[in-house]
Amino acid sequence: MKIIDISIPIHEGMPTYMGNTANQPKITTTTNGYITDTRLDMNIHTCTHIDAPLHMINQGETIESIGLERLVRRCKVIEVDANDRITEEDLHGKDIEQGDFLLLKTKNSFGQTSEKEFIFLAEDAAQYLIQMKIDGVGIDTLGIERSQENHPTHKGLFSNDIIIIEGLDLKEVDPGEYLLVAAPLKLTQIEAAPARVFLIEGLAL
Amino acid sequence: MKIIDISIPIHEGMPTYMGNTANQPKITTTTNGYITDTRLDMNIHTCTHIDAPLHMINQGETIESIGLERLVRRCKVIEVDANDRITEEDLHGKDIEQGDFLLLKTKNSFGQTSEKEFIFLAEDAAQYLIQMKIDGVGIDTLGIERSQENHPTHKGLFSNDIIIIEGLDLKEVDPGEYLLVAAPLKLTQIEAAPARVFLIEGLAL
Repeated sequence: MKIIDISIPIHEGMPTYMGNTANQPKITTTTNGYITDTRLDMNIHTCTHIDAPLHMINQGETIESIGLERLVRRCKVIEVDANDRITEEDLHGKDIEQGDFLLLKTKNSFGQTSEKEFIFLAEDAAQYLIQMKIDGVGIDTLGIERSQENHPTHKGLFSNDIIIIEGLDLKEVDPGEYLLVAAPLKLTQIEAAPARVFLIEGLAL
Repeated sequence: MKIIDISIPIHEGMPTYMGNTANQPKITTTTNGYITDTRLDMNIHTCTHIDAPLHMINQGETIESIGLERLVRRCKVIEVDANDRITEEDLHGKDIEQGDFLLLKTKNSFGQTSEKEFIFLAEDAAQYLIQMKIDGVGIDTLGIERSQENHPTHKGLFSNDIIIIEGLDLKEVDPGEYLLVAAPLKLTQIEAAPARVFLIEGLAL
């Protein structure tokens, strides 16, 4: 069994979505001589995280509606050779089946894009994944979308009960099948949760 | 396969260690009309979490020193019929072996104790677990220790590289063996990390 961590480290000064400094975490450590204690203050979309529909849909479902059974399961890592955005055409010919949880590996994982100019999932590609009836999708950057008015990628996926994981690092992962473990903090009644996400190789469900 | 969530929910007004209100999380949600966004501000020992030696030992190892391989593994849930504190005697006759990761189920899981008067692991019991060379121990309350000057339970376990998980809820778990998944947020250079922790039944490593 091999574990491949695909989460990004949380630290002050980390990259943020669109370079938004307001999303920087504040990590405050104190000591009384031998007890060390830390307070963490961050936007919950700052690090690797799982989004729920409420993030973009008023009265949408909140994070606890996504059961752990949907987050601990077989997944497929698919490498997409896209520039600027992943289009429907980029996904044609890929091994995508109904019920899949896809993790999209792009140039983002190799530091070839920036906080503001990352590769994202275009609306037509999101619609294709909705037609294919996938169960979830993860991407190797802090946003699955940018530069699209009214966020049709988010809204389309959320409206079709497709889980979104943002902020993965897939640099060390070869395309193929793995056991996905996406473990969100047990927050409730809100639109997302920070998560530790890793893959397990050599263990089948 | 069955997943049993053993994490406690994070919310404002949740129970805290010794009833310390300063440890309450602050969860601030805003909306711009359709985008909902939340900021989470909390002490990292507030919810289910994993401690690293730095928490009680100056210059001790920090949380990233605990590899995921030590947190995704076989574990044993042991029920202990203790009042006030778990002593060495309470552990005699239990199925404890070298290398075990033990989760201690007590009356805490049944709400029969309070924020300030919870059942904890006494120093002699910690020394016994050190002699038995276990690898980790979890408990069903926010502190593995109280009422012991200079924190000998914490320090003994940390000095012997025994992982501590605090803040479990074992109410729904029968004693026995499970696959443990303890997934801390990917924080670095600090003394602990909030975690989602769950058990998997029917899947062997």
